[in-house]
Amino acid sequence: MRGLKFLFAVHCHQPVGNFGHVFEKAFDECYEPFLAAVERHPAFRFAIHFSGPLWEYMERRRSDCLALVGKLAGRGQAELLGGGFYEPILGIIPEKDRIGQLRMMSAYLESLFGRGPRGIWLTERVWEPDLPKALAAAGIEYTLLDEEHFHYAGVRDIHTSYITEESGFPLRVFPIDKKLRYLIPFRGLDDVRVYLEEISAQGGTAILGDDGEKFGLWPGTHEWVYGKNWLADFLEFLEGEGIRTMTLAEYADESAPGGRVYLPPASYEEMMEWVLEPSDLEAFRRLKKSAPSEAARFLRGGLFKDFFLKYPEANHLHKRMISVSRRLETAGNDDATKALYRAQGNDPYWHGVFGGLYLPHLREAAYGNLIEAEKKSPPFPGWRREDVDLDGLEEHEYWGEPFRLVVKPSRGGAFTELAHLPSSRNITDVLSRRRESYHETSPDGRAGEGGSIHEMAKKLPPGAEDLVRYDRYPRYSLIDHFLHPQTGSEDFRKGTYGEQGDFVDQAYDAKLNGPALGLERRGSVWDGRISVPVTVHKRILPEAGFLAVDYLITNRGSEAVSLVFASEWSFYMIPEEFEVRPDGAGLLNGRLSFRATAPAEVWSFPLRTLSQSEKGYDIIHQGFCVIPLWRIQIHGEETASLEIRLIDHDTR
Amino acid sequence: MRGLKFLFAVHCHQPVGNFGHVFEKAFDECYEPFLAAVERHPAFRFAIHFSGPLWEYMERRRSDCLALVGKLAGRGQAELLGGGFYEPILGIIPEKDRIGQLRMMSAYLESLFGRGPRGIWLTERVWEPDLPKALAAAGIEYTLLDEEHFHYAGVRDIHTSYITEESGFPLRVFPIDKKLRYLIPFRGLDDVRVYLEEISAQGGTAILGDDGEKFGLWPGTHEWVYGKNWLADFLEFLEGEGIRTMTLAEYADESAPGGRVYLPPASYEEMMEWVLEPSDLEAFRRLKKSAPSEAARFLRGGLFKDFFLKYPEANHLHKRMISVSRRLETAGNDDATKALYRAQGNDPYWHGVFGGLYLPHLREAAYGNLIEAEKKSPPFPGWRREDVDLDGLEEHEYWGEPFRLVVKPSRGGAFTELAHLPSSRNITDVLSRRRESYHETSPDGRAGEGGSIHEMAKKLPPGAEDLVRYDRYPRYSLIDHFLHPQTGSEDFRKGTYGEQGDFVDQAYDAKLNGPALGLERRGSVWDGRISVPVTVHKRILPEAGFLAVDYLITNRGSEAVSLVFASEWSFYMIPEEFEVRPDGAGLLNGRLSFRATAPAEVWSFPLRTLSQSEKGYDIIHQGFCVIPLWRIQIHGEETASLEIRLIDHDTR
Repeated sequence: MRGLKFLFAVHCHQPVGNFGHVFEKAFDECYEPFLAAVERHPAFRFAIHFSGPLWEYMERRRSDCLALVGKLAGRGQAELLGGGFYEPILGIIPEKDRIGQLRMMSAYLESLFGRGPRGIWLTERVWEPDLPKALAAAGIEYTLLDEEHFHYAGVRDIHTSYITEESGFPLRVFPIDKKLRYLIPFRGLDDVRVYLEEISAQGGTAILGDDGEKFGLWPGTHEWVYGKNWLADFLEFLEGEGIRTMTLAEYADESAPGGRVYLPPASYEEMMEWVLEPSDLEAFRRLKKSAPSEAARFLRGGLFKDFFLKYPEANHLHKRMISVSRRLETAGNDDATKALYRAQGNDPYWHGVFGGLYLPHLREAAYGNLIEAEKKSPPFPGWRREDVDLDGLEEHEYWGEPFRLVVKPSRGGAFTELAHLPSSRNITDVLSRRRESYHETSPDGRAGEGGSIHEMAKKLPPGAEDLVRYDRYPRYSLIDHFLHPQTGSEDFRKGTYGEQGDFVDQAYDAKLNGPALGLERRGSVWDGRISVPVTVHKRILPEAGFLAVDYLITNRGSEAVSLVFASEWSFYMIPEEFEVRPDGAGLLNGRLSFRATAPAEVWSFPLRTLSQSEKGYDIIHQGFCVIPLWRIQIHGEETASLEIRLIDHDTR
Repeated sequence: MRGLKFLFAVHCHQPVGNFGHVFEKAFDECYEPFLAAVERHPAFRFAIHFSGPLWEYMERRRSDCLALVGKLAGRGQAELLGGGFYEPILGIIPEKDRIGQLRMMSAYLESLFGRGPRGIWLTERVWEPDLPKALAAAGIEYTLLDEEHFHYAGVRDIHTSYITEESGFPLRVFPIDKKLRYLIPFRGLDDVRVYLEEISAQGGTAILGDDGEKFGLWPGTHEWVYGKNWLADFLEFLEGEGIRTMTLAEYADESAPGGRVYLPPASYEEMMEWVLEPSDLEAFRRLKKSAPSEAARFLRGGLFKDFFLKYPEANHLHKRMISVSRRLETAGNDDATKALYRAQGNDPYWHGVFGGLYLPHLREAAYGNLIEAEKKSPPFPGWRREDVDLDGLEEHEYWGEPFRLVVKPSRGGAFTELAHLPSSRNITDVLSRRRESYHETSPDGRAGEGGSIHEMAKKLPPGAEDLVRYDRYPRYSLIDHFLHPQTGSEDFRKGTYGEQGDFVDQAYDAKLNGPALGLERRGSVWDGRISVPVTVHKRILPEAGFLAVDYLITNRGSEAVSLVFASEWSFYMIPEEFEVRPDGAGLLNGRLSFRATAPAEVWSFPLRTLSQSEKGYDIIHQGFCVIPLWRIQIHGEETASLEIRLIDHDTR
């Protein structure tokens, strides 16, 4: 084993918008003790990556760690890896931003430590075949990828590096050894020794790349890694065995690649499962179990971008980000660009065991940064038509003071976004409740919890079974319901009611009339005996300081009908910011009033989701649903009118 | 079935460099009769694609067809599809060339017919996820892809169109119905009717996209389609049934996409099998057979770029093309660019049932065009170091008069290219004999031949069993062999001999010394009793009008040895151009002399390969192998010197 080459790379990251106490805990329990431990072993050479939010935090609050990193880098012990500054998935952001974020990190490291990076940590190892172009443009020579990427390409030996290329731009790629990832730091050194001896016997190089948070922040690891001295023992073990730890740079200069490879779009194995719909995941897992090992390379899960099909909320954020990036391409404003880059941080765009789509504060940070970017380089005020979400159908977008609106005629004429510009908040950003594979089957080992939903429910607080009721449609705002007279607030909340009209999630005709957008659908309502032809016309009129929505509901039949009409809105507000009122709700601590004119009732309830994370199951407050409701009688060929106002008291 | 929408698209192509008689036959038996038949049915609306070589041929020789196309397009019956002008695989050429080739075709169609294309035929339907960017830059709105692409994305309904996007650039994509591809024109109209009724009952749209050559050029189809009136009957059938044929443009304007999709890199099913190594193909087919249908979407064959791993010859052509493209990026020369575009035509880059890698005249055209492009914007004369084939190791390239050289120190210090510039010929461009899956197993139905290699051999001319002997190393030139004294020419040809030295395909040290490149390897030769330390030094010196190669072979041992040394060269020459001589060979009808100084013998034999095509098996003459051979005795610590010259009598 003497002379075995060992490439050890760690990646440390906290998302843009994460809570300060999480950052502080991560430094106290993980990053600082890790750096301190390796500092005591100058012969241990390794590569380390901190994402931009961590560098910025270190500069502000943890100059001790910054100094430590500087010392390790200065004496050549630590190789600092670059990457997209705010840890974006490079494959889902425009080419110019890929290059911009990479260069931003390189320039940052150069200014702090006098030397830019030669290699990067690839966010979530999400590989797209065209990445070598942007990496070459940013002067990057190599990155680490998962061994899965290489298996798909038919590579058998993962104990060496390879070269890939796109349009002649070469990139060195290092396969991360999955077995090593599971051994370190979780298993005893005897197990580590056995495996390293195996690699050594094959004449290979041991290559590890993994999350730094495993060294102190993951549950139980602080005590194990430091309290029980795992890390110190490991470092001594490496020295004692004469194992040759190297930086990636040293290795790249010394060893030629083992061959050329072409890698399909991929990430680590789990990620490509998380992106699948539950039923597909089941079929995929069955196939994987039954497939012979020599054919495993031909099995692929989903693409990362399938998250944008699985979660319309992720898609909306993604397409809005793309559209802001396009605007800045021509506008060009450094502050705006930085805000855009922050909004590109990967976490709120996806969900698995990790990922932050279910976490409202991370989505809030992303939307906040997008809105900040737009405010610094604002669009022309007023309405414009654009296929915002790229489904081939046009939406209507509005930019003004104080609101930014996106209206989707093809899906119920609803707001897919309603942002309050002074607070830079997308106030309708909630996540729908949808079936997740781990609601029903045993989640993988890392999730920490197992069993059926029935067993699970027993472990959760009372009422958790509500969280595995699924929404029939995305929780947009301005959704037009016709309800049965006996449907109550609880039926609505639970989804145990019948829709009497055909307006929810259906297509509306849209027409601009000066500053107002008119949306109309000729549909029908079942009144218990017959289907009554009904037209819903809604006029959206943004004004200085408030937003007016006027409904005209026309009975196109000849006989009078009694109707229960409800307009559903969902607001992303934490409980402290939200207040139910008899005619609607107070939002943003009373800054905004949501008011219906003379409703019969206003229903309201909190929206909560059940998701998984590395700690187990999370029940997350997504916001509040508010439903003003009218009981109206309309004579044949007559029209009723209803009003809703969203008022910004400070802007007005 | 009345009102069923039917989108019918055909794609017609002949490769750059194909024989004139093939073009003429294609027009006579296929393109012209097809156009004439549809002209008689003005209500039949369809889309058609001709690749650039066909347009250029029509302009030169078939103005009758050009006029017919103009008439059909002018009356709105035919929609002309664009594409990369010379039919490149867009995903394997640089972004600027993707856009350039697409724009070239669009401008061409606009100049000829007054209107540019809105959609394209995607060469071999090789999809890369980043293509929407280049397509958007060229103003393209849609393309057709195989239904496989959509299956991989989890799409179940292939009877509608979809939308995809990259970085916010949208592209409409039409799934080609595979069943329809197999029905038309091969089956009777009753079968076609049954399937169209099925689509109609589902409320779907029938979408066909296929090779135009099926309508008269494929074996047997001319008689079937025209002699037996299949096409005329089909066109009448469509009218009689009230089926609504439409252009893609009409459909795109009228119908919204069925949803958004993200497609992995893919092509049609067969292509992704052809690219696999035989053993992998076997494992893949077994897995496909055993996998349940709901999991089929997770099964993927290889990537198109894997052809560059399977065939080093395809890789060399590809990387040379990329490197010429890079040069032109800065040089900028319209004639050179056009030659480059011609060299990007897809055919010689791959091999399956179709594809032209095995066809020397197509490779010759590609190299010829690359050399023409370089000559119009020539590199600085002399040697330079570059990793030409992108394996992470440097080659030495030389540009001068009359030769262009690529020397690969890491693989035997051999020439991977030796091009004669006055004739624009890569004269060492031969294809090695390698195992192909169809040599041993029953090829798919389309290949026309079946059975084991044993059975097959019986059907082939005597001596064909030689063609399934495989080369142990790529057939580069300047390969250094030490042979057993009893090894004869036939043993060498058949590969039934033992290599006594360790020089073939091994690493040489390379060093420039003024205008000469020195290559040296310290190896050893087994002389039947002991392993003798031997150094081979070869000096490559290009001069005006000739190329000198001087060997210095040093016996580093202390005792004298007898050695048989052979220098292997392979030349791409047709028999008419080639002549064996006592001291070497005459090449290019005597223009070039290949001369060894005082060899004991010169062995020479033709190189032939066995490959498949749509017509069955092809035995193809790839060129000639020429091996001057010396029997030398070298005393201990002494050196023998040998000489080879390649002389261009016209340049000299």
